[in-house]
Amino acid sequence: MLKPFFEPSSVAVIGASRDPAKLGYAVLRNLVEGGYVQKGTVYPINPRADEILGLPAYGSVLDVPDPIDLAVLVIPYPYVPDALRICGQKGIPAAIVISAGFREAGMEGLERERDLMSIAKEFDIRLIGPNCLGVIDTFTPLNASFSAGTPPSGPMAFMSQSGALGTAILDWAQAGRLGLAKFVSLGNKADVSEIDLLDAWVDDPNTNVILMYSEGLPNGEEFIRAARDVTLKKPVVAIKSGVTQSGSRAVSSHTGSLAGSEQAYQAAFRQAGVIRAESMEELFDVALALGYQPLLQRDRIAIITNAGGPGILATDALERAGMSLARFELETKLALEEFLPGAASAANPVDVLGDARADRYQFALDKVAEDPNVDGLLVVLTPQAMTEIAQTARDIGELAKDIEKPVLTCFMGEAMIAEGIDILAGYGVPNYPFPERAARAFKSMSRYRQIKERPLSEYASFEVDKDAAQDLFDQVRSEGRLTIGDAEARAILEAYGLKTPDSRLAANPDEAVQIAAEIGFPVVLKIASPDILHKTDVGGVKVGLRNAEEVRDAFELMTYRAERYLPEARLWGCQVQEMAPPGGLEVLVGMNRDPQFGPLVTFGLGGIYVETLKDVTFRVTPFTVRDAENMLGEIRAHALLDGVRGQPPVDKDAIIDTLLRIGQLVSDFPEITELDINPLIAYPRGQGAIAIDMRLVLSK
Amino acid sequence: MLKPFFEPSSVAVIGASRDPAKLGYAVLRNLVEGGYVQKGTVYPINPRADEILGLPAYGSVLDVPDPIDLAVLVIPYPYVPDALRICGQKGIPAAIVISAGFREAGMEGLERERDLMSIAKEFDIRLIGPNCLGVIDTFTPLNASFSAGTPPSGPMAFMSQSGALGTAILDWAQAGRLGLAKFVSLGNKADVSEIDLLDAWVDDPNTNVILMYSEGLPNGEEFIRAARDVTLKKPVVAIKSGVTQSGSRAVSSHTGSLAGSEQAYQAAFRQAGVIRAESMEELFDVALALGYQPLLQRDRIAIITNAGGPGILATDALERAGMSLARFELETKLALEEFLPGAASAANPVDVLGDARADRYQFALDKVAEDPNVDGLLVVLTPQAMTEIAQTARDIGELAKDIEKPVLTCFMGEAMIAEGIDILAGYGVPNYPFPERAARAFKSMSRYRQIKERPLSEYASFEVDKDAAQDLFDQVRSEGRLTIGDAEARAILEAYGLKTPDSRLAANPDEAVQIAAEIGFPVVLKIASPDILHKTDVGGVKVGLRNAEEVRDAFELMTYRAERYLPEARLWGCQVQEMAPPGGLEVLVGMNRDPQFGPLVTFGLGGIYVETLKDVTFRVTPFTVRDAENMLGEIRAHALLDGVRGQPPVDKDAIIDTLLRIGQLVSDFPEITELDINPLIAYPRGQGAIAIDMRLVLSK
Repeated sequence: MLKPFFEPSSVAVIGASRDPAKLGYAVLRNLVEGGYVQKGTVYPINPRADEILGLPAYGSVLDVPDPIDLAVLVIPYPYVPDALRICGQKGIPAAIVISAGFREAGMEGLERERDLMSIAKEFDIRLIGPNCLGVIDTFTPLNASFSAGTPPSGPMAFMSQSGALGTAILDWAQAGRLGLAKFVSLGNKADVSEIDLLDAWVDDPNTNVILMYSEGLPNGEEFIRAARDVTLKKPVVAIKSGVTQSGSRAVSSHTGSLAGSEQAYQAAFRQAGVIRAESMEELFDVALALGYQPLLQRDRIAIITNAGGPGILATDALERAGMSLARFELETKLALEEFLPGAASAANPVDVLGDARADRYQFALDKVAEDPNVDGLLVVLTPQAMTEIAQTARDIGELAKDIEKPVLTCFMGEAMIAEGIDILAGYGVPNYPFPERAARAFKSMSRYRQIKERPLSEYASFEVDKDAAQDLFDQVRSEGRLTIGDAEARAILEAYGLKTPDSRLAANPDEAVQIAAEIGFPVVLKIASPDILHKTDVGGVKVGLRNAEEVRDAFELMTYRAERYLPEARLWGCQVQEMAPPGGLEVLVGMNRDPQFGPLVTFGLGGIYVETLKDVTFRVTPFTVRDAENMLGEIRAHALLDGVRGQPPVDKDAIIDTLLRIGQLVSDFPEITELDINPLIAYPRGQGAIAIDMRLVLSK
Repeated sequence: MLKPFFEPSSVAVIGASRDPAKLGYAVLRNLVEGGYVQKGTVYPINPRADEILGLPAYGSVLDVPDPIDLAVLVIPYPYVPDALRICGQKGIPAAIVISAGFREAGMEGLERERDLMSIAKEFDIRLIGPNCLGVIDTFTPLNASFSAGTPPSGPMAFMSQSGALGTAILDWAQAGRLGLAKFVSLGNKADVSEIDLLDAWVDDPNTNVILMYSEGLPNGEEFIRAARDVTLKKPVVAIKSGVTQSGSRAVSSHTGSLAGSEQAYQAAFRQAGVIRAESMEELFDVALALGYQPLLQRDRIAIITNAGGPGILATDALERAGMSLARFELETKLALEEFLPGAASAANPVDVLGDARADRYQFALDKVAEDPNVDGLLVVLTPQAMTEIAQTARDIGELAKDIEKPVLTCFMGEAMIAEGIDILAGYGVPNYPFPERAARAFKSMSRYRQIKERPLSEYASFEVDKDAAQDLFDQVRSEGRLTIGDAEARAILEAYGLKTPDSRLAANPDEAVQIAAEIGFPVVLKIASPDILHKTDVGGVKVGLRNAEEVRDAFELMTYRAERYLPEARLWGCQVQEMAPPGGLEVLVGMNRDPQFGPLVTFGLGGIYVETLKDVTFRVTPFTVRDAENMLGEIRAHALLDGVRGQPPVDKDAIIDTLLRIGQLVSDFPEITELDINPLIAYPRGQGAIAIDMRLVLSK
């Protein structure tokens, strides 16, 4: 579908220039020097030239007698729309618009970009850019960008929203240790976005790992759906930048104060199986391991080193990264003991000693690689007097070629080991200058195995009374309100199949006493007013009222206080509520809406855990049953759910059920902007959960 | 004191060799090629040679007519002791023993090392090694090691316990961007240790930052004392390796299960003001910033970039590192707006745009550096078509020379920016390939400012009844016991000035009822037996007993159960204890003993916080009043101490007092191996704290 961008049979450069200082020259030069001219036809388009770089030039694409697959536009922005229209008339299916001056340049530019897209749609042209660096496919080979040179070929496909970062990435790649299959500078993403490229690259045989730098994903939900499928086949590693601006949003709920765009991305990437890199360095480190080495089948790593200290550093780093040190078969140990000198260590980490030449490394490598308890190898080398760096590198490379276990190296130093690293790179064995970075790469390999092998899980769907909820929302809106709590909230929860305590509105003390007697003492009394959101702050909640007198006293005190301190509040009376039975654990289920990803559902323990420790986790809707299950294990205090100090384990199924039903509710009603169930009381296993209090805000 | 190691007036190489494959050749070659021969006299000692590398050789140091300052021993280990004795006879004050075959080679080697040290002591010789790489001082210049080449001069002094890691470090340094003033390979640390080098380097004018790689600090307490003083003058950055083996230790207390050697190091480094690096990469990144750039006065950083994406990455990274983005003066903004093109950003991060040449960077740099709200500068550069990389680097270097604010750079890429980075390095401006690493460097600068400017704090000393505690310990031991709890523990706590609830032993139900009446209901009853450690596990604690009947029932039930389920336990009866008043917060104060650092005092909240969340912090004794104060703020749930949800703040002073008194107790009695006060109930401010329960274990 996006094939013309990567394997066009012919390319027109609109704005091709003879002036080496111009981008129109650089693009043409890259098409020529990058080798594309041997593969397809290049048409420089320039009305004031007969030929450029030895290629015959044309005044317009309409003058070209043959069909054109791809147009690259490198002309000042005022001329771009007309040029694109002519491309359409010529029947060109794909265009890269390098020119800037569109959305990134303010309101006028945005208007211009909209015009551009309407032309593209009219003529069915797919468009990359505008305001981008271009596109590279090293296998075609095609360099349709104004980059300074072409990166070496390799198994990584990179998409970048930032052109400038792209420049730096290409420079790193050209330094030799980072091979790219494809590079796309996405620019303003007027048409082709990350989602299109994921679809286009998932089955590309030259691409082992997909990398992305993104500053925002406007179609968040669609991105998750696309990436979920891709990550079952290929690793996707992403770096997301962008200062969180949650502080500037008006926030009135617990959930809202906890969830920023940072949390939405974290949840979305997790649900999509996208590995998130915290830094550019991590992105490359992880990409090298995933791109060049086979899948890590389990997490048992063997270390082979010629130095004790770095061996310890590597052990520490692997343990911290959650890897385990392989325990060798007795056979392996005995063979190592027999061959290695007495002072060497035949256990893991294997220390071949500082005076080891290549043969000692090779013997240890072979034995350790054969051991069925070893899933991956980390070879540590310090450049000592006897060390045969180049030969050791060759031996490692040959071994890595032959086995289905990943091999990473940590040759430490700089000038002395440079040749060794180049040899390793030739074999596709990534080298990390420090053991901590190799450990991080192993961790990402382990993470990707879990992603790839994750069981597919279902989206839940419950029979609910959607109409009841809709009617209530309509009624609340008709009264000019947007906030729903208490008894009204109860109706919605029940419509969506959640348990709530019995609760009824009393207009005066007598009614309150009568309702309390019907519900059964003890009861809870809450002030009922659409204008009082935080009832506890005004003393508007009393729990454990044991008899008629206490109910009457509480009713009168609350209404007196409300009238005195909030004279403008509408008072409906008091809500009389069944006391929740003791013995449950308070948890929080909430939702707020992220501008890019939509509903973001929160789970955490109640009270102090959410307020002070911010110990919560998130999912973007729709999320699967397994996602909901996983949420329970992701909070730091998750042990509390399993029962500590003799407490019984809580009814996790009831919490999972609540999360899924709330997910359905907020998906059904995009008009819900915030929602808090706080607390949901979860009782011991088999005894369910009760939503004690809920607050919900509708959009204006 | 260690001057002969770094600035000797003459050096003898015992074991100097003509064979280039031998270490004895490499050491001599480094003394010659490293430039020392122009400074002092070198005496090759080799009975079978007349001259080596152009220097006259001697059969023994005793044959050398002049005094010798430093001997380097590079001979097989069997000959080392005699050679050292002869050095002593010659009156040589300092020796570097490169030879291996000592403690690292098992029991026999350990014996040999002891012999060596007794000779050193007899002749008053200071000794570095054995089993090391040697010593380098680039200012003398002296290279008394078998390193492959000499590193460039610079402001860092490095001590390494691992020789192999030393090799890698020296190779990095020689690659050009890491200047070393001194390098010491510590080897087995038979005599000279990290502590000696800290003392030796603190006033060295050539050293700006001290770096250490350590695998263990046997004299932990002494190290803390030395480092505390050093870090007020110079930053010390350390990397500590070593797999935690806490899992293998027998642990019977809460505190014990929380505190491993990892926690002890963390506490010790914190108390000593040592900055801990998590990886070698971090060590070097941090060292560059601290070694070459001035102190960061406050944390307000300005970013100047020629690319939006990397600018955002840098902003994110700085915020995550706890730095703040500087807000410019209006004057600065107006000047930038006037000079920069319209599309540029004149706010922080300043975006000079992709087509910026050096002049635009320079203007922005000057304006931003002058702004009084800017404490440090981060210059981000991507290599774009118009970018004048070398000139921009020179301008940055010139600016950095002139101002008293740190300047770090993030030139991104590889080949295209290499020259720029070299130019920056020439000016002492560290470059980081990724913004996250520059941010981490700024963070360490901020951390060091806090360390350097930390107020000196006192060690507390309380009047206590040490004899009472000693008597009790003696008595317990005389009964063949090692564990102390309940009433006995109470006596110790009171001897050390802590409040405990009234509590008395009752031998039978009648006594219990009588004591309860005296104390006042409600009371707590606890089974009293030296053989029952975890009373709650056997139903041996009942709280809130309101009258005589409840006390009697509880007494009989507990003793019945104990007799039935633990027939072998000695039963003393039950402890009747005053109920602690309600309204307090349960915290934990504990101690266990670290093999290297001694008593490690723990603080955390009680219950779930310590058991499930492991939310605790540590100090090594002795610790200062300020240390104790800081502990309270270090736990994640520290907000609970200040009161949340309308709770009053707790009496922090009482907790601090308890921590200090317990610190004194465990310092006074090295025989205490473990101690738990769990819970200590802290009441609202001004109302003190009560130690409800305490358990203490004595050493065998």
